Order: sequence, then structure tokens, then C-alpha cells
Amino acid sequence: MTGRCVGVGVGPGDPELVTLKAVRILAACPVVAYFHATRRESNARRVVQDLLRADHVEIPLVYPVTTEAVAADEYETLLVDFYDESAKRIAERLDGGDDVAVLCEGDPLFFGSYMYVHHRLAPVYDTEVVPGVSSVLAGGAALGMPLAARNESFVVLSGVLPAHELTARLRDADCAVILKVGRNLAAVRAAVTDAGMLDRAQYVEWASMPDERRMPLAATDGIRAPYFSMVVIPSAAAQR
Amino acid sequence: MTGRCVGVGVGPGDPELVTLKAVRILAACPVVAYFHATRRESNARRVVQDLLRADHVEIPLVYPVTTEAVAADEYETLLVDFYDESAKRIAERLDGGDDVAVLCEGDPLFFGSYMYVHHRLAPVYDTEVVPGVSSVLAGGAALGMPLAARNESFVVLSGVLPAHELTARLRDADCAVILKVGRNLAAVRAAVTDAGMLDRAQYVEWASMPDERRMPLAATDGIRAPYFSMVVIPSAAAQR
Repeated sequence: MTGRCVGVGVGPGDPELVTLKAVRILAACPVVAYFHATRRESNARRVVQDLLRADHVEIPLVYPVTTEAVAADEYETLLVDFYDESAKRIAERLDGGDDVAVLCEGDPLFFGSYMYVHHRLAPVYDTEVVPGVSSVLAGGAALGMPLAARNESFVVLSGVLPAHELTARLRDADCAVILKVGRNLAAVRAAVTDAGMLDRAQYVEWASMPDERRMPLAATDGIRAPYFSMVVIPSAAAQR
Repeated sequence: MTGRCVGVGVGPGDPELVTLKAVRILAACPVVAYFHATRRESNARRVVQDLLRADHVEIPLVYPVTTEAVAADEYETLLVDFYDESAKRIAERLDGGDDVAVLCEGDPLFFGSYMYVHHRLAPVYDTEVVPGVSSVLAGGAALGMPLAARNESFVVLSGVLPAHELTARLRDADCAVILKVGRNLAAVRAAVTDAGMLDRAQYVEWASMPDERRMPLAATDGIRAPYFSMVVIPSAAAQR
């Protein structure tokens, strides 16, 4: 019997925002795999570190590059090779009969890296996905402001998009969250301003984590936004 | 000292998809409030029923009407009064010094009823929100298909929207989830078809629950969709 590959969402960062199912799956899987950047701790592993035992076999899947280091087409090739290799390392364990938990920050199928190994393994192996609390939801909780209500259209956008596209998509939405803000904060703020939404826009970083911080987007002058930051355009229809 | 009001997301329906934080908060709060429809069990309560003790004081908040029963403006007035009254009942406990957990299916601030009592109580009382796994994420997990990847724009729409508006908003999105499908299934399917997305659209009902069922949207002829149903237009960019 081959093992089962389980994509486990570990939530937005607070170890208490892990689900009971994730805890059970981690306890039951002898092998735990996780992605992380070079020269940085795996954030997903950090969230569940108290749940890992000495007898867990760990498979760290270390990204070969960061976005900045190489040209776009080379980056793409390197990543495809990396996901091929990562899937192969997991498959070896599955072939040996072990179940493998693949940790993923937030939710595995919502902007998560897990989907790339899922895509490669699901046609051959038994797979399961344990959904997790997305950072988007942790952002709303940090603000104590409704993300979406009633029949509103809610959109999640990438801060990497060109500012004019961001503006156009924001104009079409009732409420929104912009991820991947980081180094794009100034462009994101300009796009939100052009969309006429600066007055209600909020900025959140490290949602659910010890360094959590929030402020109106209009007050972010001089802020150096970390990778774990987002801009929230809260619901306008939630007051009833 | 007045008590604290805590909006507790209990996740999409599977009792195992409750977070450790929700479990801790429920154990610590002497009072537990939850919304439910007339003549129906509270779904949020059902999810955490094994966590409730005999000494928990329960405050059931029963909706005065269902959507169908009255005209739109009368419905709105009845609901506003209902949320006023619900907030008052919770406030009485907070004034008495008790912490109150307000249960909410999915996430409290993402299309959740909790936001209406939060809006009324947060200016006066200490409040906290525990985010939960949204049904949207459980839908992706049920399908084993990526909801959104890379720099895609992901939109959550209401199946109650007019079909032409639904079509227009789908055309602007890379990937989407349509909630509140239920009785609107035929109109939703027509809108997805008009948007040219029927070939990849999926239908999911009772995600994460024992009756979970999924199929291509194109195969839903004759289906009677329950309230807990959704249509997913999965990511088109997740293959790498």
C-alpha cells in the first residue's frame, strides 16, 4: 500500500489558529514536508513546531531562488524543476507506504505552494486537503472590521498587479483584500487612492502574529511593509 | 468589570475544522450565543455541541422570519430590530461581568451574522474575533482543486445577484466562488455559461460535512441545491 499525501493548512501564523483536524493529521503522519525560502526559517513549520516530535521525518523543501535573483523566464524554469523534485521526494515516501503531511501557511489551495505538488501527485496517489484559516480572514479579525456582507462582491487581488489594473479591479468590487503588498505598498496605496477607496482602506501586517500591527492605509507614510502585509477595503454594507 | 464579547468562527461544518483557539475560548466563556432559523437547529451550535457543557449558559438568537415570508422593506426592519434585541441580550451578560462567545459558521466577519452584533457592541464593550475556516476554503478542499494562484484575481459573489451582473463580474475575474446558490442554481449556471466558464465550473454542497457532494456544474441537471451549496470556478493558473 502506498501512503497518502495530505495538504495541511496551518492557518495565518498564530499556532492557536491551527484546526483540530490539522493536529490529528500531523500526529498520525510519520513524514512532514514544508516549503521554505533559503536562509529563512519555514513559517509553516514554525506555526506547528510544538506539534512535531523527534520521530517525525522532516522534508524541508527549500526554494532554489528568491524572486529578485533571476530573470522571469529563468525563475519559472527553476521553479518548475523545484516542484518536480519536491513532488519526487514526497513520492518516495508515499511509495514506501508512509503518509506525508505537506504543511502550508493559511489554506493549501488558496494561493498556497502545496497546489504545485498536489497537481503532480493527485493523479497517482491518494490525496486529501485540510483547509486552513487564510491570512485574509486573520486580517479582518485583526481589524475587527467586516470583510464582506450580504450580496457584496469581494475580491482578493495581488499587490504585484500594475497599478492601473489594480485600480480598475478595485472599482468593480464592493470590498477587497490586496495581498503581496510588501515592497509594492506605495503603488498599492496609489491604486486604492485612484479607486476612491483610501478613506476606508486599512493596512495590516503580521496578522494573528506577535508583531501584528494595523493602521489606516492613509497613515502608512514611511512604513516598510513586510511580506506578511495586506491592505483591506472593508465591507460598506455591513451596517444594518 | 464588564465581560468581553468574542466572535468565534467555528468553520464550515466539520467539528474537526474548529481551531484550537475557538476550543479554548469556548471552554473559558460561561455564556455562548448563536443565531439560528426558526424551526431549525443552529448549525453553528451543532458544530461545537461536543464542546458545550451543562454549565454553559446558552443564548439562542432566533431569526424572526425567513427571507421569503415578508416584503423586502419589512424584512429589513424586522432584522434591524432583531439585531438590536440580540445585542441587548448579549450586553446584559457582558454588564454582569460574563464573557460571551458568539458562535458563527465559517468566519465571523466574512458574510457572518456576528458582524451585526459586533457593530452594535464594539463601540462600548471589549471585543475579540477568532477567525475561522470559511466554507469557500472547504469547497476548494472538497474538490481538491486550487481556488486561486500566483497573481490571479479571485472573487466571491452572491448567487442572489441578477444573472447579467453575475456574468459581468465573472468575466472580470480569473477565478471565483459563488455562494448562496440554493434556489438560484439555474440562474447561476446560466450566468456561468454566459461568462464562458461552464467547462471548468464545479458544484459543491455540504462542504466538509457528512453529506458533502461535488460534481461538474454542467452535470447538475435535476439537482435541488441546499442552502449550503456553492459553485467554484477554480484557478486557471495553478499548473506550473
